[in-house]
Amino acid sequence: GKADFDVRAVGNLPGIKDLHIVSDDYKLVSRKWKVNPTVIDFGDGLRVKEGEFTIMAGPCSIENEEQVEKTINHLVEQGVRFMRGGVFKPRSSPYSFRGLGLEGLKMFYDMCRAKGIKVVTEVMQVSQIAPMEPYTDVFQVGARNTQNFNLLDELGKVDKPVLLKRGISGTIDELLYSAEYIFSGGNEKLMLCERGIRTYETASRNTLDLNAIPILKEKTHLPVIVDPSHGIGIREYVEPMALAAIMAGADGIIYETHEKPEEAASDGAQTLSFPESERMIKKMQKTFTLRKELGN
Amino acid sequence: GKADFDVRAVGNLPGIKDLHIVSDDYKLVSRKWKVNPTVIDFGDGLRVKEGEFTIMAGPCSIENEEQVEKTINHLVEQGVRFMRGGVFKPRSSPYSFRGLGLEGLKMFYDMCRAKGIKVVTEVMQVSQIAPMEPYTDVFQVGARNTQNFNLLDELGKVDKPVLLKRGISGTIDELLYSAEYIFSGGNEKLMLCERGIRTYETASRNTLDLNAIPILKEKTHLPVIVDPSHGIGIREYVEPMALAAIMAGADGIIYETHEKPEEAASDGAQTLSFPESERMIKKMQKTFTLRKELGN
Amino acid sequence: GKADFDVRAVGNLPGIKDLHIVSDDYKLVSRKWKVNPTVIDFGDGLRVKEGEFTIMAGPCSIENEEQVEKTINHLVEQGVRFMRGGVFKPRSSPYSFRGLGLEGLKMFYDMCRAKGIKVVTEVMQVSQIAPMEPYTDVFQVGARNTQNFNLLDELGKVDKPVLLKRGISGTIDELLYSAEYIFSGGNEKLMLCERGIRTYETASRNTLDLNAIPILKEKTHLPVIVDPSHGIGIREYVEPMALAAIMAGADGIIYETHEKPEEAASDGAQTLSFPESERMIKKMQKTFTLRKELGN
Amino acid sequence: GKADFDVRAVGNLPGIKDLHIVSDDYKLVSRKWKVNPTVIDFGDGLRVKEGEFTIMAGPCSIENEEQVEKTINHLVEQGVRFMRGGVFKPRSSPYSFRGLGLEGLKMFYDMCRAKGIKVVTEVMQVSQIAPMEPYTDVFQVGARNTQNFNLLDELGKVDKPVLLKRGISGTIDELLYSAEYIFSGGNEKLMLCERGIRTYETASRNTLDLNAIPILKEKTHLPVIVDPSHGIGIREYVEPMALAAIMAGADGIIYETHEKPEEAASDGAQTLSFPESERMIKKMQKTFTLRKELGN
Repeated sequence: GKADFDVRAVGNLPGIKDLHIVSDDYKLVSRKWKVNPTVIDFGDGLRVKEGEFTIMAGPCSIENEEQVEKTINHLVEQGVRFMRGGVFKPRSSPYSFRGLGLEGLKMFYDMCRAKGIKVVTEVMQVSQIAPMEPYTDVFQVGARNTQNFNLLDELGKVDKPVLLKRGISGTIDELLYSAEYIFSGGNEKLMLCERGIRTYETASRNTLDLNAIPILKEKTHLPVIVDPSHGIGIREYVEPMALAAIMAGADGIIYETHEKPEEAASDGAQTLSFPESERMIKKMQKTFTLRKELGN
Repeated sequence: GKADFDVRAVGNLPGIKDLHIVSDDYKLVSRKWKVNPTVIDFGDGLRVKEGEFTIMAGPCSIENEEQVEKTINHLVEQGVRFMRGGVFKPRSSPYSFRGLGLEGLKMFYDMCRAKGIKVVTEVMQVSQIAPMEPYTDVFQVGARNTQNFNLLDELGKVDKPVLLKRGISGTIDELLYSAEYIFSGGNEKLMLCERGIRTYETASRNTLDLNAIPILKEKTHLPVIVDPSHGIGIREYVEPMALAAIMAGADGIIYETHEKPEEAASDGAQTLSFPESERMIKKMQKTFTLRKELGN
Repeated sequence: GKADFDVRAVGNLPGIKDLHIVSDDYKLVSRKWKVNPTVIDFGDGLRVKEGEFTIMAGPCSIENEEQVEKTINHLVEQGVRFMRGGVFKPRSSPYSFRGLGLEGLKMFYDMCRAKGIKVVTEVMQVSQIAPMEPYTDVFQVGARNTQNFNLLDELGKVDKPVLLKRGISGTIDELLYSAEYIFSGGNEKLMLCERGIRTYETASRNTLDLNAIPILKEKTHLPVIVDPSHGIGIREYVEPMALAAIMAGADGIIYETHEKPEEAASDGAQTLSFPESERMIKKMQKTFTLRKELGN
Repeated sequence: GKADFDVRAVGNLPGIKDLHIVSDDYKLVSRKWKVNPTVIDFGDGLRVKEGEFTIMAGPCSIENEEQVEKTINHLVEQGVRFMRGGVFKPRSSPYSFRGLGLEGLKMFYDMCRAKGIKVVTEVMQVSQIAPMEPYTDVFQVGARNTQNFNLLDELGKVDKPVLLKRGISGTIDELLYSAEYIFSGGNEKLMLCERGIRTYETASRNTLDLNAIPILKEKTHLPVIVDPSHGIGIREYVEPMALAAIMAGADGIIYETHEKPEEAASDGAQTLSFPESERMIKKMQKTFTLRKELGN
């Protein structure tokens, strides 16, 4: 339990000018602790932070060199600097496609680096961290691992940014507790991601909880990214949900795109074609511009 | 059960040019049945429809003449044409304030009519419909009555618009089935309202399901209004959720405002002050303008 | 709001021996208010109460005289004294079978009364109460009407027992608040019913929340009945869930049975045949006997 | 995707007598694949299987030798053969007690082995498996790791029984998919555990889903254990929920007990004292005896 003490005993010590008590179960990730928003600097003028708008896009799974090349070309044309893509895939059934593995990651990373694109990819267990680290710019923690506390502990010791997704039925506070594991371990390059929660509604894959955006933006100084692809799970509706997320206050959007969504190895039903992706990027930028004009 | 039949037996009849089968459990409210969006005309150039933006605002409960007068003045200044306000309040506990009743409604309606404002107010049971009708412009059906099928049947016979809220844990399809009750009864002046669903998340009052907006806009020709006040339940976050709802495709926003939210008889924690309301109205209009420019 | 006052000002008045503060939003239905369990006496030695075991069975919908007669014969053989059956059916879609109405109820009631069977049937709106009352022994309030507060108010004025079902996603406290509406109106002949809640699980129709049984039994003095038919929605599993409910502390079980479940007008998939019903009754009685022996 | 093929092409091959198609996403754990229930043999006549009743009890966390000794004495007196206790604790907040670790496990195991008690303890990551294996009789996979697929893969290669808990909001099918990971890896000594799911209800810690018991017992040949401690989270109600679980068809119960629950390092509010545990064991045995007499 927590010991009670008389705060005045500390507040009156010489040299103490002001004193803040942070009573939540998370401390370091709280806005009460650190008022200024976290800035994650990737060099070359590339930053993820409040007040700038970040786009991360790419396929669900890395499939082969041709796919990566075409996606990179699309991203470079559109000025997108982060490519997402999984090489280790968490799959509910053991009989589904489980990814290209480390060799796929090396290929993915080398091709991206040659074009100035940063790699965002999911890590699923502690033993993958060390071998993945040289080929990864952002470690993504998926919704099934949000409370894999050993993984969080180890990512707290790494000097690479982490994108932490909300659990499949995780509360907002649980997301912040999990963030605290990483942050308190020493890794302050941390981004949070809302990707939809599980409810009784079956018309969409998940229920994208945009309420979480303004709530998180007030509770924490960490950047908040939204994943509308998983959040609704239906290609035609990814765009309106991305634009909605921006107006709700998101610092960035991560989504799935593929040259031929209908042939994607996974998640094709929620994946945008390149023309759809291009159209959405333009609309997202205009929406973000409006939000800044409104002072939101 | 449904009888099977050979559709060709109908399609080949003389005079039949084209044939559509609507196999959902709702028919008349489906876009498959009626492609053109429903327009609800209130006269004086006031319409609720896709492509225009509707604002409905006012207190949770009608309290007294002074409150109504001040709210009307605020709405007239801002160009808002619909005032919401309850005189029969559904309350979980029988010991909470239950509203001013019919006398309050008459006062509310007379004051609004004098200023060209339309009254949106909740009806809770069949026996209230007839006495309320002369003093009501829009019958609101609350989230606890979405499946009060007798009430829906009777509202189907009324010549007044209805605003039908989604159930507290209602699915999107159940909302459409309930709409079908009213529409198939003959009342086609129908608007749907997303107001948040019940989930395990406790950081917000409800989980505003903006996924429902693009899904409803494709499934039905009826206008879709969003209630961010109940959808998140926290005053500071009503504005970002309203703007998000617009970008998701909402045809209108209904929200709670009061001269002194902290003194409101109910729902004060989610009610905007008049300055907050004014600021939000301006931002909503700019956001809707952008959405039209984007062609969404 | 609630006025604060110094309880000592009351406690020190002459004549006050002891003082209990009931601070919940429900009072009269609380065990803190009334320690002895409520007994509902139907005459002829038939009572619903803690310590006795009540069975209510019958079809989802009343269909015709032959069906009622066969069901009554089955119940009389098994010593069951309550027959359930709906004549007004709440249906999500307006195109489903909606019941035989008041004429059906008269037939149902007359046939039951001739054999000493009590009629349990659903009331859906205020205007039905008066015409139904002469032909109804227990007014059932369905899960879509648990927060139909006008209906609850009116049932509070009736001198007939009420079986109040938990809302489709109602909390335990909301069920007690709704009970308070009826009880505080003057009708103390009240039974509560757990019938499953809505969750994300799709392998069963609802999630039967047996946790609610011991919690309700401690919070309130009212009898608690469990409906395993709606609670799981799959015929083969109704029996184990009924037995589980008894061990969890239920005062009674209400379930669906029909001579030919596969031909039932509604809910056939969760309806027991008469042989299945007979087998379950015998097992329920043995299970209840064990529970009493265990002192639970 | 799955290739379609004409099953007759296989069924007509010489030597094929009968042919079963298992079309679920899980195969090996399905009752369609293996009709006879799985038996897990621990030697000395100790087995977990359908038709016998298994009890596993102990503290949430292993704290010290004295605690372990007293718990073992309690279990030996009551004839319980499995002691549960965590040495690696998954905690939402990084600032909570996180367990004694491997040294604690050695002490726990040595003391249990001396008295013929089997150790059930949670494994949280792949790297813990090898060091834990010599000191563990049953690897427990907790609700936050049900979809930690790497962990499941590795446990599939181990020659020790596994107790796999349902995810915090996991569906029944997802539990079976996860079981398939372990089983298809070669480890057939597998038990499933229902421990409550996350819903909107806040009166209990979780919603114990006893519907899952008969559904799982039909879908799979694996033993099903129920955890009423986590399932309801309130000490006074653990016993009725354990008895309910038995009548629903559970093959065993796992619960938390501690000499002084109010001083337990974790989960005290749902932990039974030894007298409460003793009383519950006697009642569980009588309830299981009745279930067998009823043929359920």
